Order: sequence, then C-alpha cells, then structure tokens
Amino acid sequence: MAVYVYGHKNPDTDSVCAAIAVADLKSKLGVEAKPAMQGELNPESKFVLEKFGVDAPEFIDSAKGKQLILVDHSDLAQSLDDLKEGEILGIIDHHKLGDVTTPNPLECWIWPVGCTCTVIKSMYDFFGVEIPKNIAGIMLCAILSDTVIFKSATCTDKDKEAAEALAKIAGVDDLQALGMEMFKVKSAVEGTPIRDLLFRDYKDFDMSGNKVGIGQLEVVDLSILDPVKDDLYEEMKKVKEEKGAHSIFLMLTDIMKEGTELLVVSDDASVVEKAFGKAVEGRSVWLDGVMSRKKQVVPNFEKAFAG
Amino acid sequence: MAVYVYGHKNPDTDSVCAAIAVADLKSKLGVEAKPAMQGELNPESKFVLEKFGVDAPEFIDSAKGKQLILVDHSDLAQSLDDLKEGEILGIIDHHKLGDVTTPNPLECWIWPVGCTCTVIKSMYDFFGVEIPKNIAGIMLCAILSDTVIFKSATCTDKDKEAAEALAKIAGVDDLQALGMEMFKVKSAVEGTPIRDLLFRDYKDFDMSGNKVGIGQLEVVDLSILDPVKDDLYEEMKKVKEEKGAHSIFLMLTDIMKEGTELLVVSDDASVVEKAFGKAVEGRSVWLDGVMSRKKQVVPNFEKAFAG
Ligand SMILES: [Mn+2]
Ligand SMILES: [Mn+2]
Repeated sequence: MAVYVYGHKNPDTDSVCAAIAVADLKSKLGVEAKPAMQGELNPESKFVLEKFGVDAPEFIDSAKGKQLILVDHSDLAQSLDDLKEGEILGIIDHHKLGDVTTPNPLECWIWPVGCTCTVIKSMYDFFGVEIPKNIAGIMLCAILSDTVIFKSATCTDKDKEAAEALAKIAGVDDLQALGMEMFKVKSAVEGTPIRDLLFRDYKDFDMSGNKVGIGQLEVVDLSILDPVKDDLYEEMKKVKEEKGAHSIFLMLTDIMKEGTELLVVSDDASVVEKAFGKAVEGRSVWLDGVMSRKKQVVPNFEKAFAG
Repeated sequence: MAVYVYGHKNPDTDSVCAAIAVADLKSKLGVEAKPAMQGELNPESKFVLEKFGVDAPEFIDSAKGKQLILVDHSDLAQSLDDLKEGEILGIIDHHKLGDVTTPNPLECWIWPVGCTCTVIKSMYDFFGVEIPKNIAGIMLCAILSDTVIFKSATCTDKDKEAAEALAKIAGVDDLQALGMEMFKVKSAVEGTPIRDLLFRDYKDFDMSGNKVGIGQLEVVDLSILDPVKDDLYEEMKKVKEEKGAHSIFLMLTDIMKEGTELLVVSDDASVVEKAFGKAVEGRSVWLDGVMSRKKQVVPNFEKAFAG
C-alpha cells in the first residue's frame, strides 16, 4: 500500500512540489510513496511542472484507510476533512505548529525557513540521496515562489543556499530570470473566473472567535489587477456573506515595489488600523514592505483581534 | 537571554540527558542555551550524570518570558503549566505528536525511534558538531534506558547504530554491562518513600474522557519489589482517590524475563481484559512480552476505553 504525500487545501507551488519531492525521496529510501494534492494546479504550479517535465500529483479527497505524509501544513483546517480516518506517518513543514495530533510516533521535519522544499533539500542530503535534475528544478521554483525571489520576510540564508545548490543540479543559471518568468505567469489574470482568482491563494482563520479570510495575489505590477479590482471587491463581499465571516482581506502584493495593497471587506475596518497603524481609505490601504501573509499579516491581525 | 531546553514532568534519563545534549549542540551553533528540568533527578539519572561527570540541569517551573525548546514530549499535560507565557523555538522528540501548538514557525525534529538522544545524535552529525566524550556517555545511557538495553518494542536499528557510535566516542566497551549497572540502580527501592517510587516514572492520560494514570518500575528481577508491593498497591488506591481517576495502573516490568506484572486499581477492571485479552487475578495480571508503556500499554488501553 502506497503512502500518500500531500499539501494543504488550495495547493500552491510549494505544496505541490514538496509532495512530489518527498514521494521521490521516500521511494528511494524503500517506501512506496505517491504525491497527491487536494485541488487543481494553479497556473504558476502548472507552468513549473511543464517547464521541468514533471507529472502532476493525483487528486486526493479522503484519508480513509491511507497512510499519509503531510507537507507544507500541520493545521487540521488545511488538511483532509476526514484526516482521523487515516494514519499520519510524518509531517514536513515550515509553518507554525498546528493542531494536528497523532496516536502513534511519527517523523517530523519542521524548520523555521521560507519554504518546505528547503527542508526537503536538507533531507535528501541527510539521507545521501541524489536529487533528480527535474525535481531539483521544481523544488527551486517552490523556493522562489514561497520567498518571492528571496524578498519575503520569511526568507532565510538556508533558503538561499538550498536554491543555489538546486539551481546547479537543475542547470538553471539565472535565478532572477526564472523567478520573474514564474511570477509573470502567476500575475496573469485574463480568462480566470473572478472567484478562482480570489481563491487562488486563500486561507480561512479563526481569530479570537472571528472568522477571517485572507487571500493573496502576487503580481509583478499592481496595474495588472486594475481591470479586475472592482469585480474582486464585489466577490469578496459575496464570500463574506456566504461564509458568515467577520472580515475578508485580499493582499494585492507588488513584488517589485515590495508592498501590498490590502483590500478590506469587514464588519469593523478599524482592526486594520489596530493591526498596521494605518487606516483604510475607501476600500483599501497600502502597506509598504508587507509581502508575507504568514509572517506579517496573520500575526498582526491575530493580535488586533485578540486585543 | 538564554534558551531553556527541558523535558517532561517526572523527568527520566532521556529527558534529562536530551536537555543537556541539545543545550550543548545549540550553544556550539551560536545559540545561548541552558539545560533545565521540571523535577528532581531520579536515582538512575543521578547515577548516569555522576558516572560521566556531567552537571545536573537547573530546575524550571515557569515558561514566563522565556524562549524554550521542548525535548522528549509534545503534550501540554507533560509540559510547563504556563507554557503559553513562553515562546517555543523547537521540539525534539520521539513520541506521538501531542497537543502543543505555536503562533510562530519553529524547529521540530521528531522521529519514530526509541529515544530522543538517538535523534540528537543525528542532529550533531547533521550540523557537523563533535559530541563531547561525557555527553556521548550520557546520551548512550539515555538510549540504553529508553530501549531497556535494546529489548523494548520501541527500539529501532537507528537506536542501536546511534548507541554504538556514542559508545565509541564515550570509550564504553561493554554496552550490556553499562546497561545492567544502570538498571540495577533503577531497580533499587530501599529507602525510597513509597509515593516517590510510584511516581518515579508516572504519567496521567485522558482516555475517552476517563482519567487514567500509568506508572512503570523497571527492575532486573521482580523479587526486588516483593517487600514494597503491598505498600505500592495501597498508595495507588490513595492516588486514585486524590486524582478522581478511573484507573491507576502500575507496570512492574522485569527486563530480564521481558514481561510486566500490571498492578490494577480501577473502577472497572474489565478494561484490562479488553486491552490485553487476559483478566486480572486478585490485584494484578502478568503480561508476557509487554515492556513498553508507550507502544504496548497506552495504545491498548486507549482502544479499550474508546470501545
Ligand atoms: Mn510553503
Ligand atoms: Mn524518551
């Protein structure tokens, strides 16, 4: 029976590539393992897999009777709904420790770095397993994606070192160029249904009893989003209604200007000023230097909602 | 400000030695770190530290304002009561994943092996840090203790490999002899207050809403416990009363015969038959081949209480 390796809901490039890399590593260590994902490939991930000629993971929507390795998350809310029906053998991640628990001992590699694939690079080294060229390529892309080409506040020296070593294996000379190519794909909004765009990289949180949704779109220039901004805002209102949420926030992150325009639909927009010391004007606020949901936005909102 | 490294309540040799080793490793990696423990040294740990000339960790009873690394546990019930007041930087463990969560990314090394010090041996190797001779000695003892000289069901090949490598560094030729020397100290009961003996290696569990306490005494021959068995049984009754527990179990484990006499004080002793297929006779039952609380006793009782 194969072990299924899978990342969080609304899979991003790290979740997809980490699942593929861990399944490869485990297979070479003698454990039959398959990469899986809880949703469709986003355009960026699709581009990355095509560029390096790697097959997409299979779709998974149930843990029942399966042995599992979780990558890029340790929160129940981001995992398979029936997780209790499966057996968790391991977790490989780079986030805060979530509420997943297990009845049996397991294998966890969780480090405070910018990307799960940085941890996995070290795991390959630790076990003395060679990284295939194409898998090195997609792991590199995951690091460029999660760290926003090394610009994110979550990026560490370990991420840079791993990316450079992976680039050598993958035969990539210009990391910056590969990153920009990827983010241009990620920036593309034409032809995408507006709800898919809003949910492209979206997570729900419980903050002191309030339901809070935070999405993020990273683009190489904010003007790319001008044609869809009104529609995004109307869609956020609908989603807030449907979820009965306190707030829906959408980070429109300009990776070149290194800042975020935060679109705000909220029962009480003053939480934004509490969180960032800057009031919402109209429907949004510009947050200079803010690029990371995990490290800059979520903690600030958690404090603001708690206080 | 130093980072405090500490193990579970009622510290055992692994918790104490893992705290010392991780603090040593972190210090050499440039992080000021101090070993700590949540209680007194047990006789075995005292013997181990004295044998290799290592100082005891300092006592810790509050997380307030401290940066922390947890070793040998990830359960809130086994950690500092005010854990929320501190900041968890990491967890190094070999148990099931408990209910500790964090607001920030952290460093976890959790492997399904027989002893935390086996994980730490690999960490030293991973970071290319040399293990001091005396610390190798106490890490070796922790492995011999947790794996009952490699006889426990929790023992893996990784534990044996780590122990052999550590023995070389520590200059120990005869692992079996060192293990027996240690377990003879552990077996000694003379002069120990009866409650201290019962709590020497004792843990509380919540099993399907029932409070269940399970202690374990490992001896080289069960006859060593004959003079204190009546008193232990009376003390278990008192503890059950005081805690309002459903059951108090005490494993009297004979490491040479490789089995356990389970002393039982319970509202419903039939859970023992449900768990092990063998009924309690009088106040106890002999469980052949059962040596590990974690791997053999806790999971069976959890199933019995759930069903
Ligand atoms: Mn990630
Ligand atoms: Mn242990």
